Amino acid sequence: LREAALELFLEHGFDHVTVAQITERAGLTRRTFSRYFADKRDVLFAGSEQLPGALAGAVGRADPALAPFPAMLSALTETGDLLAGRVQHPAERRAIVQASPELQERGRTKFAEITGALAAALQQRGTGEATAALLAPVGTAIFRAALDRWAQQPGRASLADLIRETAAELVANVQAGPGQDQQPRGLHVADERRGW
Amino acid sequence: LREAALELFLEHGFDHVTVAQITERAGLTRRTFSRYFADKRDVLFAGSEQLPGALAGAVGRADPALAPFPAMLSALTETGDLLAGRVQHPAERRAIVQASPELQERGRTKFAEITGALAAALQQRGTGEATAALLAPVGTAIFRAALDRWAQQPGRASLADLIRETAAELVANVQAGPGQDQQPRGLHVADERRGW
Repeated sequence: LREAALELFLEHGFDHVTVAQITERAGLTRRTFSRYFADKRDVLFAGSEQLPGALAGAVGRADPALAPFPAMLSALTETGDLLAGRVQHPAERRAIVQASPELQERGRTKFAEITGALAAALQQRGTGEATAALLAPVGTAIFRAALDRWAQQPGRASLADLIRETAAELVANVQAGPGQDQQPRGLHVADERRGW
Repeated sequence: LREAALELFLEHGFDHVTVAQITERAGLTRRTFSRYFADKRDVLFAGSEQLPGALAGAVGRADPALAPFPAMLSALTETGDLLAGRVQHPAERRAIVQASPELQERGRTKFAEITGALAAALQQRGTGEATAALLAPVGTAIFRAALDRWAQQPGRASLADLIRETAAELVANVQAGPGQDQQPRGLHVADERRGW
Protein backbone atom coordinates (compact mmCIF):
# COMPACT_ATOMS: atom_id res chain seq x y z
CA LEU A 1 0.00 0.00 0.00
CA ARG A 2 2.74 2.43 0.96
CA GLU A 3 4.68 1.70 -2.23
CA ALA A 4 1.56 2.13 -4.36
CA ALA A 5 0.71 5.41 -2.62
CA LEU A 6 4.23 6.83 -3.00
CA GLU A 7 4.28 5.92 -6.70
CA LEU A 8 0.93 7.61 -7.30
CA PHE A 9 1.81 10.72 -5.24
CA LEU A 10 5.01 11.11 -7.29
CA GLU A 11 3.22 10.55 -10.59
CA HIS A 12 0.16 12.79 -10.08
CA GLY A 13 0.91 14.95 -7.06
CA PHE A 14 -0.46 14.27 -3.57
CA ASP A 15 -3.53 16.48 -4.04
CA HIS A 16 -4.75 14.59 -7.13
CA VAL A 17 -4.54 11.03 -5.80
CA THR A 18 -7.55 9.30 -4.21
CA VAL A 19 -7.58 6.41 -1.74
CA ALA A 20 -9.48 4.40 -4.40
CA GLN A 21 -6.57 4.81 -6.81
CA ILE A 22 -4.11 3.67 -4.12
CA THR A 23 -6.06 0.53 -3.26
CA GLU A 24 -6.59 -0.24 -6.96
CA ARG A 25 -2.87 0.05 -7.71
CA ALA A 26 -2.06 -2.16 -4.70
CA GLY A 27 -4.80 -4.65 -5.62
CA LEU A 28 -6.37 -4.35 -2.17
CA THR A 29 -9.69 -3.24 -0.75
CA ARG A 30 -10.64 0.02 0.95
CA ARG A 31 -11.25 -2.03 4.07
CA THR A 32 -7.62 -3.18 4.11
CA PHE A 33 -6.46 0.42 3.62
CA SER A 34 -8.55 1.56 6.58
CA ARG A 35 -7.00 -1.12 8.77
CA TYR A 36 -3.61 0.58 8.41
CA PHE A 37 -4.25 4.25 7.68
CA ALA A 38 -6.79 6.90 8.66
CA ASP A 39 -6.48 8.73 5.31
CA LYS A 40 -4.01 9.24 2.45
CA ARG A 41 -2.01 11.80 4.46
CA ASP A 42 -1.55 9.16 7.12
CA VAL A 43 0.40 6.99 4.63
CA LEU A 44 3.18 9.59 4.77
CA PHE A 45 2.98 10.52 8.46
CA ALA A 46 2.02 7.24 10.16
CA GLY A 47 4.16 6.80 13.26
CA SER A 48 5.31 10.44 13.39
CA GLU A 49 2.84 11.13 16.22
CA GLN A 50 5.17 9.07 18.43
CA LEU A 51 8.15 11.31 17.71
CA PRO A 52 7.50 14.09 20.28
CA GLY A 53 7.03 11.56 23.07
CA ALA A 54 10.06 9.53 22.01
CA LEU A 55 12.26 12.63 21.97
CA ALA A 56 10.95 13.83 25.34
CA GLY A 57 11.59 10.38 26.83
CA ALA A 58 15.14 10.36 25.49
CA VAL A 59 15.82 13.84 26.95
CA GLY A 60 14.57 12.54 30.29
CA ARG A 61 16.87 9.50 30.14
CA ALA A 62 19.97 11.51 29.17
CA ASP A 63 22.84 11.57 31.69
CA PRO A 64 21.77 14.04 34.43
CA ALA A 65 25.32 15.44 34.48
CA LEU A 66 24.97 16.70 30.90
CA ALA A 67 24.27 20.37 30.25
CA PRO A 68 20.94 21.03 28.47
CA PHE A 69 22.23 21.28 24.89
CA PRO A 70 24.36 18.09 24.95
CA ALA A 71 21.48 16.27 26.67
CA MET A 72 19.13 17.35 23.89
CA LEU A 73 21.67 16.33 21.24
CA SER A 74 22.05 12.86 22.69
CA ALA A 75 18.25 12.51 22.62
CA LEU A 76 18.13 13.63 18.98
CA THR A 77 20.77 11.11 17.87
CA GLU A 78 19.20 8.27 19.87
CA THR A 79 15.76 8.98 18.39
CA GLY A 80 17.25 9.55 14.94
CA ASP A 81 18.57 5.98 14.93
CA LEU A 82 15.13 4.63 15.80
CA LEU A 83 13.37 6.81 13.25
CA ALA A 84 15.78 5.95 10.43
CA GLY A 85 14.93 2.27 10.81
CA ARG A 86 11.26 2.99 10.21
CA VAL A 87 11.16 5.56 7.40
CA GLN A 88 11.08 3.98 3.96
CA HIS A 89 11.88 5.84 0.75
CA PRO A 90 12.88 9.11 2.48
CA ALA A 91 13.88 10.81 -0.79
CA GLU A 92 10.52 10.13 -2.45
CA ARG A 93 8.67 11.12 0.70
CA ARG A 94 10.58 14.41 0.86
CA ALA A 95 9.77 15.23 -2.80
CA ILE A 96 6.06 14.58 -2.23
CA VAL A 97 5.89 16.73 0.92
CA GLN A 98 7.81 19.59 -0.70
CA ALA A 99 5.33 19.66 -3.60
CA SER A 100 2.21 20.02 -1.43
CA PRO A 101 1.40 23.10 0.71
CA GLU A 102 -1.06 20.97 2.72
CA LEU A 103 1.67 18.48 3.62
CA GLN A 104 4.16 21.24 4.39
CA GLU A 105 1.64 22.72 6.81
CA ARG A 106 1.24 19.26 8.36
CA GLY A 107 5.01 19.01 8.68
CA ARG A 108 5.16 22.45 10.32
CA THR A 109 2.62 21.36 12.92
CA LYS A 110 4.58 18.15 13.53
CA PHE A 111 7.82 20.06 14.12
CA ALA A 112 6.03 22.54 16.40
CA GLU A 113 4.89 19.57 18.50
CA ILE A 114 8.47 18.30 18.62
CA THR A 115 9.65 21.74 19.79
CA GLY A 116 6.99 21.77 22.50
CA ALA A 117 7.94 18.29 23.69
CA LEU A 118 11.67 19.13 23.78
CA ALA A 119 11.03 22.34 25.75
CA ALA A 120 8.85 20.53 28.30
CA ALA A 121 11.39 17.72 28.68
CA LEU A 122 14.26 20.16 29.21
CA GLN A 123 12.26 21.96 31.90
CA GLN A 124 11.53 18.61 33.56
CA ARG A 125 15.29 18.13 33.67
CA GLY A 126 15.69 21.41 35.54
CA THR A 127 16.49 23.76 32.65
CA GLY A 128 14.92 27.20 33.17
CA GLU A 129 11.81 27.99 31.13
CA ALA A 130 13.42 30.77 29.08
CA THR A 131 16.48 28.68 28.21
CA ALA A 132 14.33 25.64 27.35
CA ALA A 133 12.18 27.83 25.07
CA LEU A 134 15.35 29.02 23.30
CA LEU A 135 17.10 25.65 22.96
CA ALA A 136 14.12 23.48 21.95
CA PRO A 137 13.55 25.14 18.54
CA VAL A 138 17.31 24.95 17.92
CA GLY A 139 17.13 21.19 18.56
CA THR A 140 14.22 20.96 16.14
CA ALA A 141 16.18 22.96 13.54
CA ILE A 142 19.11 20.52 13.83
CA PHE A 143 16.81 17.49 13.64
CA ARG A 144 14.91 18.85 10.67
CA ALA A 145 18.03 19.90 8.73
CA ALA A 146 19.65 16.50 9.37
CA LEU A 147 16.48 14.68 8.24
CA ASP A 148 16.50 16.76 5.09
CA ARG A 149 20.15 15.97 4.36
CA TRP A 150 19.52 12.30 5.02
CA ALA A 151 16.55 12.27 2.63
CA GLN A 152 18.54 14.12 -0.03
CA GLN A 153 21.47 11.72 0.08
CA PRO A 154 20.24 8.44 1.48
CA GLY A 155 23.13 6.14 2.26
CA ARG A 156 25.78 8.86 2.64
CA ALA A 157 25.71 8.61 6.43
CA SER A 158 23.40 7.40 9.19
CA LEU A 159 20.77 9.86 10.42
CA ALA A 160 22.48 9.93 13.84
CA ASP A 161 25.80 10.86 12.20
CA LEU A 162 24.08 13.57 10.16
CA ILE A 163 22.53 14.98 13.35
CA ARG A 164 26.00 15.16 14.92
CA GLU A 165 27.42 16.69 11.74
CA THR A 166 24.62 19.27 11.53
CA ALA A 167 25.01 20.19 15.21
CA ALA A 168 28.78 20.62 14.76
CA GLU A 169 28.14 22.86 11.76
CA LEU A 170 25.76 24.98 13.83
CA VAL A 171 28.28 25.29 16.68
CA ALA A 172 31.03 26.35 14.24
CA ASN A 173 28.71 28.93 12.69
CA VAL A 174 27.50 30.56 15.89
CA GLN A 175 31.05 30.72 17.24
CA ALA A 176 32.09 32.97 14.36
CA GLY A 177 32.45 36.32 16.11
CA PRO A 178 31.26 39.51 14.45
CA GLY A 179 33.83 40.73 11.96
CA GLN A 180 35.21 37.28 11.26
CA ASP A 181 34.72 36.00 7.77
CA GLN A 182 34.64 32.24 7.83
CA GLN A 183 34.44 31.79 4.09
CA PRO A 184 37.61 30.97 2.20
CA ARG A 185 38.82 33.98 0.25
CA GLY A 186 38.22 32.37 -3.15
CA LEU A 187 34.56 31.82 -2.44
CA HIS A 188 34.23 35.38 -1.20
CA VAL A 189 35.62 36.76 -4.46
CA ALA A 190 33.16 34.59 -6.36
CA ASP A 191 30.37 36.06 -4.22
CA GLU A 192 31.40 39.57 -5.13
CA ARG A 193 31.26 38.71 -8.80
CA ARG A 194 27.64 37.72 -8.23
CA GLY A 195 26.91 41.23 -7.00
CA TRP A 196 27.94 41.12 -3.36
CA LEU B 1 -9.65 50.85 18.60
CA ARG B 2 -6.53 48.88 19.47
CA GLU B 3 -6.87 49.74 23.16
CA ALA B 4 -10.55 48.78 23.17
CA ALA B 5 -9.80 45.49 21.40
CA LEU B 6 -6.96 44.56 23.79
CA GLU B 7 -9.15 45.32 26.81
CA LEU B 8 -11.97 43.14 25.48
CA PHE B 9 -9.65 40.30 24.42
CA LEU B 10 -8.15 40.25 27.93
CA GLU B 11 -11.57 40.40 29.62
CA HIS B 12 -13.45 37.80 27.56
CA GLY B 13 -10.81 35.90 25.58
CA PHE B 14 -10.05 36.53 21.91
CA ASP B 15 -12.51 33.91 20.63
CA HIS B 16 -15.50 35.47 22.38
CA VAL B 17 -15.07 39.08 21.29
CA THR B 18 -16.85 40.44 18.19
CA VAL B 19 -15.87 43.39 16.02
CA ALA B 20 -19.21 44.99 17.03
CA GLN B 21 -18.14 44.90 20.69
CA ILE B 22 -14.80 46.48 19.83
CA THR B 23 -16.34 49.36 17.87
CA GLU B 24 -18.97 49.89 20.56
CA ARG B 25 -16.33 50.08 23.31
CA ALA B 26 -14.28 52.50 21.21
CA GLY B 27 -17.36 54.56 20.30
CA LEU B 28 -16.63 54.21 16.59
CA THR B 29 -18.37 52.70 13.58
CA ARG B 30 -17.72 49.43 11.81
CA ARG B 31 -16.74 51.51 8.79
CA THR B 32 -13.93 53.11 10.76
CA PHE B 33 -12.75 49.71 11.99
CA SER B 34 -12.62 48.42 8.42
CA ARG B 35 -10.51 51.38 7.38
CA TYR B 36 -7.70 50.15 9.67
CA PHE B 37 -8.14 46.40 10.07
CA ALA B 38 -9.31 43.46 7.93
CA ASP B 39 -10.69 41.57 10.96
CA LYS B 40 -10.22 41.29 14.73
CA ARG B 41 -7.10 39.13 14.32
CA ASP B 42 -5.58 41.91 12.28
CA VAL B 43 -5.73 44.21 15.34
CA LEU B 44 -3.02 42.04 16.91
CA PHE B 45 -0.96 41.27 13.81
CA ALA B 46 -1.24 44.45 11.72
CA GLY B 47 2.19 45.33 10.36
CA SER B 48 3.70 41.90 11.05
CA GLU B 49 3.38 40.99 7.36
CA GLN B 50 6.24 43.45 6.76
CA LEU B 51 8.58 41.61 9.13
CA PRO B 52 9.88 38.89 6.77
CA GLY B 53 10.72 41.46 4.08
CA ALA B 54 12.31 43.84 6.60
CA LEU B 55 14.51 41.05 8.01
CA ALA B 56 15.51 39.83 4.55
CA GLY B 57 16.40 43.40 3.54
CA ALA B 58 18.53 43.85 6.66
CA VAL B 59 20.38 40.56 5.99
CA GLY B 60 21.06 41.82 2.47
CA ARG B 61 22.42 45.15 3.78
CA ALA B 62 24.69 43.54 6.42
CA ASP B 63 28.45 44.00 5.97
CA PRO B 64 29.47 41.52 3.23
CA ALA B 65 32.58 40.62 5.26
CA LEU B 66 30.43 39.16 8.06
CA ALA B 67 30.01 35.40 8.34
CA PRO B 68 26.37 34.21 7.94
CA PHE B 69 25.43 33.99 11.63
CA PRO B 70 26.76 37.43 12.65
CA ALA B 71 25.15 38.91 9.52
CA MET B 72 21.81 37.40 10.51
CA LEU B 73 22.23 38.65 14.09
CA SER B 74 22.89 42.20 12.97
CA ALA B 75 19.72 42.02 10.86
CA LEU B 76 17.71 40.75 13.83
CA THR B 77 18.88 43.55 16.13
CA GLU B 78 18.35 46.23 13.48
CA THR B 79 14.82 45.00 12.77
CA GLY B 80 14.14 44.48 16.48
CA ASP B 81 14.72 48.18 17.10
CA LEU B 82 12.25 49.08 14.37
CA LEU B 83 9.67 46.59 15.59
CA ALA B 84 9.91 47.63 19.23
CA GLY B 85 8.93 51.17 18.28
CA ARG B 86 5.70 49.92 16.72
CA VAL B 87 4.39 47.24 19.09
CA GLN B 88 2.15 48.64 21.82
CA HIS B 89 1.25 46.77 25.00
CA PRO B 90 3.49 43.75 24.28
CA ALA B 91 2.70 42.04 27.60
CA GLU B 92 -1.08 42.20 27.04
CA ARG B 93 -0.66 41.12 23.43
CA ARG B 94 1.44 38.12 24.52
CA ALA B 95 -1.16 37.03 27.10
CA ILE B 96 -3.95 37.19 24.51
CA VAL B 97 -2.02 35.18 21.91
CA GLN B 98 -0.98 32.55 24.45
CA ALA B 99 -4.62 31.99 25.45
CA SER B 100 -5.87 31.32 21.90
CA PRO B 101 -4.91 28.25 19.80
CA GLU B 102 -6.06 30.11 16.67
CA LEU B 103 -3.69 32.99 17.37
CA GLN B 104 -0.83 30.64 18.25
CA GLU B 105 -1.30 28.94 14.88
CA ARG B 106 -1.25 32.39 13.25
CA GLY B 107 1.98 33.17 15.11
CA ARG B 108 3.50 29.87 13.98
CA THR B 109 2.74 30.70 10.35
CA LYS B 110 4.24 34.16 10.82
CA PHE B 111 7.47 32.76 12.25
CA ALA B 112 7.64 30.16 9.46
CA GLU B 113 7.50 33.04 6.97
CA ILE B 114 10.29 34.77 8.84
CA THR B 115 12.39 31.60 8.69
CA GLY B 116 11.78 31.31 4.95
CA ALA B 117 12.74 34.95 4.38
CA LEU B 118 15.95 34.63 6.45
CA ALA B 119 16.97 31.44 4.60
CA ALA B 120 16.40 33.05 1.20
CA ALA B 121 18.28 36.20 2.22
CA LEU B 122 21.27 34.19 3.50
CA GLN B 123 21.40 32.27 0.22
CA GLN B 124 21.31 35.56 -1.68
CA ARG B 125 24.37 36.55 0.33
CA GLY B 126 26.18 33.43 -0.86
CA THR B 127 25.51 31.07 2.07
CA GLY B 128 24.99 27.48 0.90
CA GLU B 129 21.41 26.19 0.83
CA ALA B 130 21.93 23.56 3.56
CA THR B 131 23.65 26.01 5.93
CA ALA B 132 21.01 28.69 5.28
CA ALA B 133 18.26 26.13 6.03
CA LEU B 134 19.99 25.31 9.33
CA LEU B 135 20.78 28.87 10.47
CA ALA B 136 17.49 30.56 9.52
CA PRO B 137 15.31 28.71 12.08
CA VAL B 138 17.99 29.39 14.70
CA GLY B 139 17.70 33.10 13.91
CA THR B 140 13.94 32.84 14.25
CA ALA B 141 14.32 31.01 17.58
CA ILE B 142 16.53 33.83 18.90
CA PHE B 143 14.14 36.51 17.62
CA ARG B 144 11.11 34.77 19.07
CA ALA B 145 12.69 34.08 22.46
CA ALA B 146 13.90 37.68 22.70
CA LEU B 147 10.44 39.00 21.78
CA ASP B 148 8.95 36.81 24.46
CA ARG B 149 11.40 38.06 27.11
CA TRP B 150 10.76 41.63 26.04
CA ALA B 151 6.98 41.14 26.34
CA GLN B 152 7.36 39.49 29.72
CA GLN B 153 9.47 42.26 31.20
CA PRO B 154 8.80 45.40 29.22
CA GLY B 155 11.27 48.12 30.11
CA ARG B 156 14.04 45.82 31.40
CA ALA B 157 16.07 46.19 28.22
CA SER B 158 15.60 47.20 24.60
CA LEU B 159 14.50 44.46 22.22
CA ALA B 160 17.83 44.78 20.37
CA ASP B 161 19.74 44.24 23.65
CA LEU B 162 17.56 41.23 24.46
CA ILE B 163 18.29 39.76 21.00
CA ARG B 164 22.03 40.14 21.69
CA GLU B 165 21.60 38.67 25.18
CA THR B 166 19.55 35.72 23.88
CA ALA B 167 22.07 35.02 21.10
CA ALA B 168 24.93 35.10 23.63
CA GLU B 169 23.03 32.65 25.83
CA LEU B 170 22.55 30.32 22.87
CA VAL B 171 26.24 30.48 21.96
CA ALA B 172 27.25 29.70 25.57
CA ASN B 173 24.84 26.76 25.67
CA VAL B 174 25.90 25.13 22.41
CA GLN B 175 29.57 25.51 23.34
CA ALA B 176 29.07 23.29 26.38
CA GLY B 177 30.81 20.10 25.30
CA PRO B 178 29.31 16.71 26.14
CA GLY B 179 30.08 15.77 29.73
CA GLN B 180 30.36 19.36 30.89
CA ASP B 181 27.80 20.46 33.41
CA GLN B 182 27.33 24.20 33.11
CA GLN B 183 24.97 24.52 36.03
CA PRO B 184 26.36 25.70 39.34
CA ARG B 185 26.61 22.81 41.78
CA GLY B 186 24.03 24.25 44.18
CA LEU B 187 21.36 24.37 41.50
CA HIS B 188 22.21 20.85 40.45
CA VAL B 189 21.68 19.54 44.00
CA ALA B 190 18.35 21.34 44.11
CA ASP B 191 17.45 19.64 40.83
CA GLU B 192 18.22 16.26 42.31
CA ARG B 193 15.94 16.95 45.22
CA ARG B 194 13.16 17.49 42.68
CA GLY B 195 13.73 13.97 41.40
CA TRP B 196 16.58 14.42 38.92
